[in-house]
Amino acid sequence: MSPPSHTTTAALDAEFERYLRSLFEEQIVFNRLLSLKMLEAGPDWFRAGLPMRPDLIGNFVHDRLHGGVISALLDVVAGMACICALGSRHPDKPLEQRMKHFDRLGTIDLRVDYLRPAVSEHFEAKGRVVRLGSRVANTQMEFLSASGQLLATGAAAYIVS
Amino acid sequence: MSPPSHTTTAALDAEFERYLRSLFEEQIVFNRLLSLKMLEAGPDWFRAGLPMRPDLIGNFVHDRLHGGVISALLDVVAGMACICALGSRHPDKPLEQRMKHFDRLGTIDLRVDYLRPAVSEHFEAKGRVVRLGSRVANTQMEFLSASGQLLATGAAAYIVS
Amino acid sequence: MSPPSHTTTAALDAEFERYLRSLFEEQIVFNRLLSLKMLEAGPDWFRAGLPMRPDLIGNFVHDRLHGGVISALLDVVAGMACICALGSRHPDKPLEQRMKHFDRLGTIDLRVDYLRPAVSEHFEAKGRVVRLGSRVANTQMEFLSASGQLLATGAAAYIVS
Amino acid sequence: MSPPSHTTTAALDAEFERYLRSLFEEQIVFNRLLSLKMLEAGPDWFRAGLPMRPDLIGNFVHDRLHGGVISALLDVVAGMACICALGSRHPDKPLEQRMKHFDRLGTIDLRVDYLRPAVSEHFEAKGRVVRLGSRVANTQMEFLSASGQLLATGAAAYIVS
Repeated sequence: MSPPSHTTTAALDAEFERYLRSLFEEQIVFNRLLSLKMLEAGPDWFRAGLPMRPDLIGNFVHDRLHGGVISALLDVVAGMACICALGSRHPDKPLEQRMKHFDRLGTIDLRVDYLRPAVSEHFEAKGRVVRLGSRVANTQMEFLSASGQLLATGAAAYIVS
Repeated sequence: MSPPSHTTTAALDAEFERYLRSLFEEQIVFNRLLSLKMLEAGPDWFRAGLPMRPDLIGNFVHDRLHGGVISALLDVVAGMACICALGSRHPDKPLEQRMKHFDRLGTIDLRVDYLRPAVSEHFEAKGRVVRLGSRVANTQMEFLSASGQLLATGAAAYIVS
Repeated sequence: MSPPSHTTTAALDAEFERYLRSLFEEQIVFNRLLSLKMLEAGPDWFRAGLPMRPDLIGNFVHDRLHGGVISALLDVVAGMACICALGSRHPDKPLEQRMKHFDRLGTIDLRVDYLRPAVSEHFEAKGRVVRLGSRVANTQMEFLSASGQLLATGAAAYIVS
Repeated sequence: MSPPSHTTTAALDAEFERYLRSLFEEQIVFNRLLSLKMLEAGPDWFRAGLPMRPDLIGNFVHDRLHGGVISALLDVVAGMACICALGSRHPDKPLEQRMKHFDRLGTIDLRVDYLRPAVSEHFEAKGRVVRLGSRVANTQMEFLSASGQLLATGAAAYIVS
C-alpha cells in the first residue's frame, strides 16, 4: 500500500501526526463505530484502513460492503487531507493553532463513483487535496480492496475559511 | 412529515410493503447499525427515519451528525425508491419476481450537497425516482431535520437491468 | 412555461431585470454564440430559452443537442439565479452595488444528470437557489423540451463572497 | 503536453485514428463551433485542444473562458475516450463495427470541479476511461492551460451497451 499518486512525500512532524490520529480514531466518534484506522498521512494526503465486518454488509446476496460506508470513508479521508494541508501551510505555528482548522472545515459536496463490487477482507481509502484555495479546497479520493484494486473514486469540495 | 413532492401517492400493496420493510430494516444489516426505520413508501419513492445517537457524531465541536451518515442514508433511500419503482412496474407479478430487483441493482454514482449543519434529535431522508429507464434509474434525495428543514440534497444514478 | 417549483414569485424591479437581461444576452458573449435568451427571473431563480440550431448537434445519428450545450446552459441559469438572489438580498441598495456580485461569483462545481435524449425545436433551462449562505450558494437546475418534458437535471455550488 | 497519467500508451491503428479525427472534428458539428481539434488518442484516452477566442468568454471582467465551454469539452473528451476503449476492445473487428459504438453511447452524468480561473491562449482537455464495464464506463477528465496548469477536473459515467 502506498501514498496517493501525485503527492508530496515529506513527513509531517510527530506532534501533528499524533493529533491527526487522535482526531481520526478517537474524537470523530462515528469513525470508531466503523473501526477506522489512520494508516499514513502527508502534507496534503491521508490514508485510512477499514476492516470488513458482517454488520457493514449492504448487499447480503453478494456480501458486499454497504455503499454508504464507502461514501462515509471517502468523505472522512478527504476531510482529513484538508486538515493535513491546512496544518502544513504554516508548519511553524503552534499545534494549537493548526488544530483549529477542523472546527471550521465544512463539506460543500461529495461525489462518489462506484466502479466495482466492494468485496474484500479489508479496505483502504486515500484522500488528497488537488487544490487548496483561500476559501475552497478540492479533493480527490480512491477506495481500494486489500489487493489494491480500485473499487470506487470520489471528489469533494470543502469550505476552509 | 410528508411524501416527496412531485410523487404519485397511490398505495403499495401490503405484501410488497412488508417485503420493503424487512429488506430495509433487517436484511440490509448496515441499516441496523444506524437504527434506520422505514417510514413510508410509494410507487417511486421511499422515506426513512434516523434517530440521533452520540456515536453518530462527526463534528464533536458542534455535535453534528457525521457527513458519512448523511451520504449513507441518501444512498439507501434512493436505492429503495428504485426497488419501489421496479416492483411497481408490474404490480400483477408475484412478489418473488418483484423481489429479484434488489440483487441486480447497483449504484453508479452519488452526489450529496451539504446545505446546513446536521443538528437535530432525529432526521428524515426521502428518495424518489426522477426517471426509470430500461437500464438506468435517476433519483433525487432530500435530508431533513425533525422540524422539516432541508439539510442536504442528493442525486444518484443506478443500473437497474 | 412556468417558474421553477418551490420558488417565490415576487417580481424584481424593472431596473434590475434590465441589468440581468443585458448581462445574460449581451455581456456574457458566449451566451450570444448559443443565441440564449432570458425568459423570466425572480428573487432566487432564472429561466432561459435556447432555440435549436443544426450547429448545436452533438449526436448526428439522432440529431440530438450536444450534451455540452446542456451543461453550459445549466451552469449559466444557476449562476444567474445566484445573481438574482444576491441582488435581491438588499433590494434597497443602488443597482451599481447589486451589480458587483457577478464579478465575485465563481462556480465551485457542477453536476448534470442526462435523463432523456435532447431532441426538440427549442429548449428551456431553469435555475434556482436552494440555499444562499454567506460564502456558498447551492443551486438546482432543470432542462426541458418545448413540450415541458424534463430532459436533464443539475446541481451546482458557487462561491459568493 | 502528454497523455493522461495511468494510461496505456499502445498506439491505435491509423484507420481507427482517422475515424476518430473525422468524428471529433467534422461529424460532431458542435465541436466545429468551438474549433476543437483532436491532439492524440490511445486505447483508453483522448486529448483535445481548444484555441481561445473572444466569443468564448464567460466572465468579461477577467476575460475568463465560459465555464460551459469547459464542461462541454470535458464531456466530449470523456465520450471520445469511451469510443477509443470500446473500439480497442476488439481491434481485429472491421472498422465498420467498431464505429457503431458512437451511436449507442450515452452520457449518464457529468461532474466538473472548477479549480482555477480559465485564462490562457489555448487549452487542452484529456479524458481517460477508469473502468470499462459491460454496461457502464467510468471516466475522469482534466482541463489544462497552455502552460500545463490544472484548471478543472471532471468525472462522468456513460452507458455503453
